[in-house]
Amino acid sequence: MKAEIIAVGTELLLGQIVNSNAQFLSQELAALGIDVYFQTVVGDNTSRLQQAVEIACSRADVILFTGGIGPTEDDLTKEALAASLGRTLHIDRMAMDHVQRFFDERKAVMTENNRKQALLIEGATPLSNEIGLAVGLAIAQEDKYYIVLPGPPREMKPMFMEKAKPWLLQHALTDEMPIYSKMLKFAGIGESLLEDKLIELILSQSDPTIAPYAKEGEVTVRISTKAPTERDAMQKLDVLEQQIKSILPEHMYANIDVPLEQLIVDWMADAGLTVSAAESCTGGLLMESITSIPGSASMFAGGIVCYSNDIKKKLLNVPSAYLDGKDAPGAVSREVAEVLAEQVRMIADSDFGLSVTGVAGPGYSERKPVGLVFIGLAERGRKTAVYELNLKGTRENIRLRTVKALLYRLWRRLEERKVETPLEGSNL
Amino acid sequence: MKAEIIAVGTELLLGQIVNSNAQFLSQELAALGIDVYFQTVVGDNTSRLQQAVEIACSRADVILFTGGIGPTEDDLTKEALAASLGRTLHIDRMAMDHVQRFFDERKAVMTENNRKQALLIEGATPLSNEIGLAVGLAIAQEDKYYIVLPGPPREMKPMFMEKAKPWLLQHALTDEMPIYSKMLKFAGIGESLLEDKLIELILSQSDPTIAPYAKEGEVTVRISTKAPTERDAMQKLDVLEQQIKSILPEHMYANIDVPLEQLIVDWMADAGLTVSAAESCTGGLLMESITSIPGSASMFAGGIVCYSNDIKKKLLNVPSAYLDGKDAPGAVSREVAEVLAEQVRMIADSDFGLSVTGVAGPGYSERKPVGLVFIGLAERGRKTAVYELNLKGTRENIRLRTVKALLYRLWRRLEERKVETPLEGSNL
Repeated sequence: MKAEIIAVGTELLLGQIVNSNAQFLSQELAALGIDVYFQTVVGDNTSRLQQAVEIACSRADVILFTGGIGPTEDDLTKEALAASLGRTLHIDRMAMDHVQRFFDERKAVMTENNRKQALLIEGATPLSNEIGLAVGLAIAQEDKYYIVLPGPPREMKPMFMEKAKPWLLQHALTDEMPIYSKMLKFAGIGESLLEDKLIELILSQSDPTIAPYAKEGEVTVRISTKAPTERDAMQKLDVLEQQIKSILPEHMYANIDVPLEQLIVDWMADAGLTVSAAESCTGGLLMESITSIPGSASMFAGGIVCYSNDIKKKLLNVPSAYLDGKDAPGAVSREVAEVLAEQVRMIADSDFGLSVTGVAGPGYSERKPVGLVFIGLAERGRKTAVYELNLKGTRENIRLRTVKALLYRLWRRLEERKVETPLEGSNL
Repeated sequence: MKAEIIAVGTELLLGQIVNSNAQFLSQELAALGIDVYFQTVVGDNTSRLQQAVEIACSRADVILFTGGIGPTEDDLTKEALAASLGRTLHIDRMAMDHVQRFFDERKAVMTENNRKQALLIEGATPLSNEIGLAVGLAIAQEDKYYIVLPGPPREMKPMFMEKAKPWLLQHALTDEMPIYSKMLKFAGIGESLLEDKLIELILSQSDPTIAPYAKEGEVTVRISTKAPTERDAMQKLDVLEQQIKSILPEHMYANIDVPLEQLIVDWMADAGLTVSAAESCTGGLLMESITSIPGSASMFAGGIVCYSNDIKKKLLNVPSAYLDGKDAPGAVSREVAEVLAEQVRMIADSDFGLSVTGVAGPGYSERKPVGLVFIGLAERGRKTAVYELNLKGTRENIRLRTVKALLYRLWRRLEERKVETPLEGSNL
C-alpha cells in the first residue's frame, strides 16, 4: 500500500516552519507497513492544491493532508479535496457544537468564519479535534483512502493516533496483519559500531525487522513484526530482544522509548539515591539534562559549574599544585576530574558525584587537543573512577557526547550495584 | 520566478530525519525574491525520481535538488536529471582530484564507487564541495535552472550560499533587482506584542517589507527591499531600522542575526566584565547557554546549581529563616533570589551575579503556582534588582523563558552602564 503526505501551508514554503508533520506521519505509516512514496508541500492556493491532489491520486492509495482547515479564507484543503472527489461540503453538527461551545465557555462572540472549521465532506467520517477547533475527516472512494488532519502538530498528532490510525486499520488495512514494534535503547555506543555488532542478525532475518537509528546522541533500534495479535507479535519480538541484548549487554538500557536521563532519575528517586555534579567544559549541560526531568528534585541536590581555575580551587578544593606551574597536570587532567567528583559529592553529601573537565573547543587550552575530556564518578565508600574521552565534532557535539558518556557510566554503575546490593522488593 | 525544491532520500520518507534542507532553501529563495510553489520529497528510486523531475519541470522555473549524490548505488539524482535533460554524465577532473586527495591524505584506498561523487552532467557548472566529497552542479536549459546540492545540511548550506546563490544571481535573476535584507533582533518581548507595536508600520508600507517571526524564545524581524545596489538598499533599510528601533528602544538588541547570549558574551569579554550565576529551577540551563558561546571563559567564572534547600544554605548562605518555618518566604521568593544573586557574585568575585528561583512544574512547590519565578541581578557597588515572572507553558518553556528573561535584564543593565560610564575608546 502506497501513501503520499500533502502538507498545505504557505508558511512551509516560506521556510518559516519545518515540516515536522511529514516526519511524524512517515514514521507512523512505516510502522503500519504503509510505504510513503512522496511527501509534497503546497501553498494555500486552490488551483495548485487541486493539482497536488490529482497527482497524488495518480500515484498513491492513501493520501494524508495536514493543514489548511482553519477558519481563514486561506484555508482551502477540504474545499480542494471535495472538488477533486466531486462531492459537496456541509457543516457537521457535532463539530459545530464543539466550536460554539469553545466560544460560549470563553463568553466570546463567534465570528462567522469559524463555522468553516466544522466543514465536512459529504460521506466522510469526522475525526474530532480534542485540542483545537477544526474537525478532521477520513473518506474512502474508488479504493483510495483520504485523511485530512489539522496543521498544528499538537492537534494533528493526537487526531492521527486516536482517530485516523484506527480508521485506517479498519478500512484500508483490513487484509493486512497489523505491525507491532518495540523500541530498544542503547547508550555508550555509536550507531556504526552498534550496526557492526548486529549486522549478522540484521542480514540473516527478515521477520522481525531490525532498524537502528541515531537521535540526539542516543541509538535506538526498532524491531517490528506483523502478527494477527499483539500476543503473537510480542512472543517473536521478545525472543529477538533477548538475542540483541545478549550481543550488547552493557549498552541496552531500555525496551521502551525513554531517554537515559529519565531512566536514571526515576531509578535513583525510587532507590533513594542522590547525585551531584561539578562541571567545567560542559558548563551546566549535565545538570540541565538531569533537571529537565520532572521529579529530579528528589535525587539531584545541586552542583557547581567550575569554569575558572579560581572556582575550582575555591569551591572544590582543587590543589594549586594540580593547576599552576609548568609540570602541573593542569585543569584538563585525570587528577582534577577525580578531585572534582569527590569534592562535589562530599559538599553535597550525595551518594554519587559526577565531574567533567575537558577541552570543548573551538580553541585548544593548556596545549591539549580539542575533544580531550576526563569524566569522574565518585561514590560513597568506593574508589573514584575516571574515564578519558577523545571526542570529535563541534563544541556542541563534544559537550553533548560528554554528558551522554557520564550518564552512561552512572547507569552502568547503578546496574552493577543492583547485583551487589539488590533493592528491597526487587525480584533479583 | 517560481521554484520547486526536490529532496531525495528514503530516510526522509521513513521519517528518520526531518526535511530541514527544504526549510533552509525556502528561506533563502524567499530572500532572493523567488517564490517556492512546491516542496517534494522522493525516495532513492530512478523512475519515481524522474517522474518528480518531469512534474517539477512542468510547473517551476528553478528546480533545486538536495541529496542522492553520494557514492552508493542508491544515489541517483544526477543520473535521473541527466536522463530528463537528455544529457550525458562524465567524471569532472577537479572534483575527482578532490575525492582522490581525501583518500590520499588519510592513506586510505579509494574504492571504485567513490568516483561517482565526481560525476557532472554535460555542460553543467560544477559546484565544489568544501566540506564533503560529492560535487554539486548548476545548469540552465530552455529557460529553466537546475541546481543539485548534497543532502547533509553541513555540506548543502555552504555550497548553496557560496556557490549556487551567486550562480542563480548571475544566470537566473539577471532581470530582477536583488533583494537585500537586515535581521533585527529583539529580546524581552513576545511576538504578538511586538507585532502589535509595529502593526501600523507593517500595514502602511510595502517597501521595505517587514516580517516578524519567533524562534527559540527570541523574536526576529526581517526587513527586505529590492534595489539596484547594496548601497541603495541599505539607505532604505537603515531608515526603517531607525523607525522600528524608536518604537521599541528597550527591546531591539542587534541588527544582525546573533543570539542575545553571543552579544552579551562578546560585549562583556571586550569590556573585561565578569558574571556568575546561582540557579535553582533552571538547573544549569542559564550557565549552559552562556558557556555554549566560544570565548565565554573570559567573562564567565562559574556558578552553583542550588536545587536543594541544603545547597542553598550551605553554599550560598541563604538564612534558614528564609526557608524553614510556616511564615518564611520560602525558596521561591524575592528574598531568596536576592541573596542567591549577591552571594554567588561575592563567592565568584565577579562584576555581576545572576540568580533564579521558581516553580518550573509540572507539579507546584511550596503551594506556589507553576510559572512563578524570581530572577535576581546583583552588581558590584549597586543595589540588587529582583524581578518577578509569571510564565506559562511546559517545564521546558518556563525554564527557557526564564533564561531569556535574565539575559534580557543583564543586557539592559549593560546598555545602561554604557551611558553611565562609557568604555575607553568608545565613541559615546
